[in-house]
Amino acid sequence: MNIPKTDLSRVVIIGGGFGGISLAKKLLKKEFQVVLLDRHNYHTFQPLLYQVSTAGLEPDSIAYPLRKITRDSPRGFFRLAEVKGIDAEINNIHTNIGDFVYDYLVIATGSETNFFGNKSIEENAMGMKTVPQALNIRSLILENLEQAVITEDSEERKALLNFVLAGAGPTGVELSGAIAELRNQILPKDYPDLDANEMQIHLIEGMGRVLPPMSEHASEKAEKFLKELGVKIHLNTQVKSYDGKMVTTNTDLSLKTSTFIWSAGVTGAPVMGLNALALIERANRYKVNNFNQVNGYENIFAIGDIAVMQSEEYPRGHPMVAQPAIQQGNHLAKNFVRLLKGKKMEPFKYNDKGTMATVGRNRAVVDLGKLRFGGFFAWYVWMFVHLWFLVGFRNRAITFFNWVYNYINYDKGARLIIRPYKVVKEIVGSDEVTK
Amino acid sequence: MNIPKTDLSRVVIIGGGFGGISLAKKLLKKEFQVVLLDRHNYHTFQPLLYQVSTAGLEPDSIAYPLRKITRDSPRGFFRLAEVKGIDAEINNIHTNIGDFVYDYLVIATGSETNFFGNKSIEENAMGMKTVPQALNIRSLILENLEQAVITEDSEERKALLNFVLAGAGPTGVELSGAIAELRNQILPKDYPDLDANEMQIHLIEGMGRVLPPMSEHASEKAEKFLKELGVKIHLNTQVKSYDGKMVTTNTDLSLKTSTFIWSAGVTGAPVMGLNALALIERANRYKVNNFNQVNGYENIFAIGDIAVMQSEEYPRGHPMVAQPAIQQGNHLAKNFVRLLKGKKMEPFKYNDKGTMATVGRNRAVVDLGKLRFGGFFAWYVWMFVHLWFLVGFRNRAITFFNWVYNYINYDKGARLIIRPYKVVKEIVGSDEVTK
Repeated sequence: MNIPKTDLSRVVIIGGGFGGISLAKKLLKKEFQVVLLDRHNYHTFQPLLYQVSTAGLEPDSIAYPLRKITRDSPRGFFRLAEVKGIDAEINNIHTNIGDFVYDYLVIATGSETNFFGNKSIEENAMGMKTVPQALNIRSLILENLEQAVITEDSEERKALLNFVLAGAGPTGVELSGAIAELRNQILPKDYPDLDANEMQIHLIEGMGRVLPPMSEHASEKAEKFLKELGVKIHLNTQVKSYDGKMVTTNTDLSLKTSTFIWSAGVTGAPVMGLNALALIERANRYKVNNFNQVNGYENIFAIGDIAVMQSEEYPRGHPMVAQPAIQQGNHLAKNFVRLLKGKKMEPFKYNDKGTMATVGRNRAVVDLGKLRFGGFFAWYVWMFVHLWFLVGFRNRAITFFNWVYNYINYDKGARLIIRPYKVVKEIVGSDEVTK
Repeated sequence: MNIPKTDLSRVVIIGGGFGGISLAKKLLKKEFQVVLLDRHNYHTFQPLLYQVSTAGLEPDSIAYPLRKITRDSPRGFFRLAEVKGIDAEINNIHTNIGDFVYDYLVIATGSETNFFGNKSIEENAMGMKTVPQALNIRSLILENLEQAVITEDSEERKALLNFVLAGAGPTGVELSGAIAELRNQILPKDYPDLDANEMQIHLIEGMGRVLPPMSEHASEKAEKFLKELGVKIHLNTQVKSYDGKMVTTNTDLSLKTSTFIWSAGVTGAPVMGLNALALIERANRYKVNNFNQVNGYENIFAIGDIAVMQSEEYPRGHPMVAQPAIQQGNHLAKNFVRLLKGKKMEPFKYNDKGTMATVGRNRAVVDLGKLRFGGFFAWYVWMFVHLWFLVGFRNRAITFFNWVYNYINYDKGARLIIRPYKVVKEIVGSDEVTK
């Protein structure tokens, strides 16, 4: 693939998510040849994806061209590629654009939506793990509102104005809050011919509280905030099916809706070719030791969501969020340098910097060790931390401007139906091309 | 369509381009019911579309939600609709979402790409009149660069790095200049494995100079600027065909290319249903009197690109650019108010505010009456005027920030392949869904 062979060790990184780019950035400063592969030409800042799907931000605010990372060093190479398999015996991977040999391979492919084998949901629900998916949700919301304006069938209008989300983790909470704000702030202005009260947002969660991974304090606060915004919360409820028209659950709750967003689970996105012992089957994730080495391999590593590093403190691995991925990427870079110097690798130790979620304007919750707080100050902390971690000055500045603008004007500027989701899906017969 | 019948006269405007929104904004302040129809839910600031196709701006900087215009008055209504035909006898129009009656009808449907019946070009060339088309060009350019990196076939690489544009009007000049800047500024940094000299930009023009509608002084300057940027210009040359691989012309020039952009002509985009005398057939545009009344109709008007108002000074109608459309929209609003007061309409008079085009950083040309200038100052004037006319504070601010950022950093931030054009076209078999 036109990458010169040099005396340097070649590290091939699969995936330009949080783990992949942290590792790449650090390694590019050292004496390694770094080959970064991704099926997109950009890094996605997933924590803010929900703002793309609710017209608050355009993709360029939260996506960052991966070539702007590899170009920092003449030893860095990016290739737009989809990995098809690993041939570990000869240190080789197969991709849609050809083979790559490696000295070290780092799998940082992250996770994907888990539909738990439910076909009706997989076919009809909207996922939100990628920029195109977020844009699809943005289009669908706006298309539904436009259609609700013109329909004379009140049942149809109700379904068009019903927004149902499954899974009250951070994504479900943040997205339902943002949709509620669309209703509260934008609908009365943009759609005076619709009755804002007819628009409903339902958040369905299988567990007994929202934000199950966070503290009970955070859950309570978040639930209160969501209710203030008018989100209807259904706890201890599991979605059974969605045929494109009706969501059914294991209780007597069933909801007619044109928009069903599924954020009730993720599963690993592993690569074909490693032996069975490498993978924790049920989770679809690689079992790694505390050097992030994949079980059974010397020179194959996994970091971030795709890796399960079991420890006493984290018997099921670290939480599948940005921080463990970033820290593992940085740590692995240091270990590669140690190996280069003939030293031993050092075990990874996760530094829990806390978790947070935002529900809307002035409303967020933060768990920071024993410190738990929510509301206005938490919202500021949330914004500051997210701006801080956004990659690139330009992205930070544009995001910041949009937030200030939206805050002052109670507005969300990117209310554009650029590629109508429904129209495209009808022509193509599936959403293959829009993913 | 759920629009109440009132005692006010109802003005239905087809098209939210420059003409349509100027008229709507003015009329919303007066005692009319205004129904604005468009097949997109946003206004497109076409003069800056070329910056979307070259990754300088995201769509939300140059697109403006049409509901933000109609919401300014309780008498304003927007409907996302495609107009199918007019039934003038009963003051009714048919659309894909139902019928609308009107008291006054204003056709402001603008123009579309003219392929002059050449099927090979229509099927394989890229047009650039809409936001989705501009995003397709952005994706295609970036996809071609990624593919050029990995191909080992030097002929294929040459075709991937050859960018050919037909038509050296403002769009062709601005776009070829911007692509040249991508090569000069971005390519060496982002694609160190490509030889920037292998990337060529060809601009083909049938007439004897670039920017034929402008002064000869502007043409000379623009040609000089383009050559400085390394654009190869082929004057007095007509494109004959493009089969997806090779552009042939009426001279011995033929060019292998994966990217052929067609901006060599526009034609009116009329609506079905008016009688034959209304349309100037060859131009596909409505013949209007100097009140913008369509020939043969009392209460049907046409403004902007779709209208031909012949006069001594403009025997073939006004230039098909933003200014005549804006001025006709504003003027027609005044005439409607005159009619409301029982007064006579006044004839439209075009106030030529000059024309301008930008070729790249610090390089633009301006014709302002007898004043003709080019270069750095012209570029500032160009930027100021375009910011001024952009709709909405937010769009102005984000565009301004991006320009300053790009200027300082020699960068274009939106280099994202979000919906790969080639991949989608291959799956769907046409670019139907991506338009």
